[in-house]
Amino acid sequence: MGNELVVIALGGNAILQPGQRGTAEEQLENVRATCRQVVTLLEEGYRIVLTHGNGPQVGNIIIQNQATDAVPAMPMDICGAESQGLIGYMMQHSLHNELVRRGMDGWPVASVVTQTVVSADDPAFRKPTKPVGPFYDEEYARRKIEAGETWVEDAGRGWRKVVPSPDPVEIVELEVIRQLARDHAIVICTGGGGIPVVREPDGSLRGVEAVIDKDLGGQRLATGLGADLFMILTDVARVALDYGKPTQRFLSRLTVAEARALQKEGHFRPGSMGPKVEACCRFVEAGGKGAIIGSLMEALDALAGRAGTWIVPA
Amino acid sequence: MGNELVVIALGGNAILQPGQRGTAEEQLENVRATCRQVVTLLEEGYRIVLTHGNGPQVGNIIIQNQATDAVPAMPMDICGAESQGLIGYMMQHSLHNELVRRGMDGWPVASVVTQTVVSADDPAFRKPTKPVGPFYDEEYARRKIEAGETWVEDAGRGWRKVVPSPDPVEIVELEVIRQLARDHAIVICTGGGGIPVVREPDGSLRGVEAVIDKDLGGQRLATGLGADLFMILTDVARVALDYGKPTQRFLSRLTVAEARALQKEGHFRPGSMGPKVEACCRFVEAGGKGAIIGSLMEALDALAGRAGTWIVPA
Repeated sequence: MGNELVVIALGGNAILQPGQRGTAEEQLENVRATCRQVVTLLEEGYRIVLTHGNGPQVGNIIIQNQATDAVPAMPMDICGAESQGLIGYMMQHSLHNELVRRGMDGWPVASVVTQTVVSADDPAFRKPTKPVGPFYDEEYARRKIEAGETWVEDAGRGWRKVVPSPDPVEIVELEVIRQLARDHAIVICTGGGGIPVVREPDGSLRGVEAVIDKDLGGQRLATGLGADLFMILTDVARVALDYGKPTQRFLSRLTVAEARALQKEGHFRPGSMGPKVEACCRFVEAGGKGAIIGSLMEALDALAGRAGTWIVPA
Repeated sequence: MGNELVVIALGGNAILQPGQRGTAEEQLENVRATCRQVVTLLEEGYRIVLTHGNGPQVGNIIIQNQATDAVPAMPMDICGAESQGLIGYMMQHSLHNELVRRGMDGWPVASVVTQTVVSADDPAFRKPTKPVGPFYDEEYARRKIEAGETWVEDAGRGWRKVVPSPDPVEIVELEVIRQLARDHAIVICTGGGGIPVVREPDGSLRGVEAVIDKDLGGQRLATGLGADLFMILTDVARVALDYGKPTQRFLSRLTVAEARALQKEGHFRPGSMGPKVEACCRFVEAGGKGAIIGSLMEALDALAGRAGTWIVPA
């Protein structure tokens, strides 16, 4: 097994289960279960860097920001940073406690606030698609549209702001993360794909209103670190063809060429398996040994090749 | 000058000026000015670990949490974690840009979410003193008091919850911070004194409702790291005796024994210079070479001994 570096992108279910409102207790309980899986991998000798989604958490923070004029509302990049603090704390706290429980106390754990550079020329900026924040009535939305924002109507539920979802280009804090991972710390970083920033011509950074796909952000991180494996953990056991149809069948292993071909045939849906398969293909095409999509609760089996879907070079 | 490690505790004015409401623009502008000072110290060869207060930021987050029932309000430890993400992002973002401006791009910068252990037996838990969150009317306060919370009336402004302010005992993420500082990263950590946690008999951690003094938290950090110097940067140039009286005089250098004697005579006020002098005394008594209280805008002069108040072993 050696000392392989695995970058793990945790799905929303690692923190919040469907139907939950997102109390601190609910989130902490889910995170505790997640951390048991993570520490098991650590015991098996893997070095681990964790990244995670932040959709429900940053959504709630935005709702809280919009709920009062008593204090200034923060822009989206700062709300994203707040969600990284929130989730990072829950994870490092729970990892610490799980390590103590297994007699591994003292193992270093670090949550690192992470910025991800996106290109100001990314076509996503011309066509915002990702809904964020609370629903509003049409009058409010019209005012915001006049002010330059993009809003869409969700039939029956009201109007919602949409922001661009550009491709991640560069993880700003990559070297710091590399340093920590090299020294065997469990690193929690690039939460929500990273806080989106663009690089100005003079090299400086500027926060932007956008949402980065957490699996694509995780791939950029994994490739940047030269990780051996990239693993996306979610609530399904394997990638399926003809998902939900009588002809549905699960895939256990496919080459990146096979994955790209199936992708072209339209097998993987945009909001769901699409970006996960895309992220895995990019990781393998950039030189990674293998990428895995699997169930959070079968993480170890997936690494051992007994569960999940592996995407491999050839 | 060599390679001395300096832990710097930044006062509230490093992020927010008196009278400002705390918009993102205001905070970022102040943080930018702060970062110019910090990078100047870096250019002089110092290794730097930064810590900072979070009072106004966590206060605003609590107000936003209380403002709506649409999403679950987070407990205070999680609000503190959010504020670490918020401030950490602003600082690392601004440090990055200042480094680029001076041709020092690529210098590692990391904000690390930090937990600080306090003792469950700390007498502060029997006598909460630190007001947090918004003002409420008496009826609301009485209900909360019946539920076990401590609330106090602020004449004319309403009722406010108060929480304990226990002594910091241990920085949970100390080794990770040490590792990053050793490798010359600028580390931003222990924000707001750290997220307060208590250690259960089995060694696990549990978040608690409390506020840690950021200067005392900074001292614990500085002593733990074996820093050469501990510097508290605020909006006053020097510690004064008879502050505000006709006999007022500024101190440029005193031994820890002298500082302790003046402290006993009641020279340093509890909510203001008191904890700063206390933190400096603790740092020097624990073996530190020197502690400095000075103005943010004179940081380099203070390190060179031309400004600020130095507290030294003898």
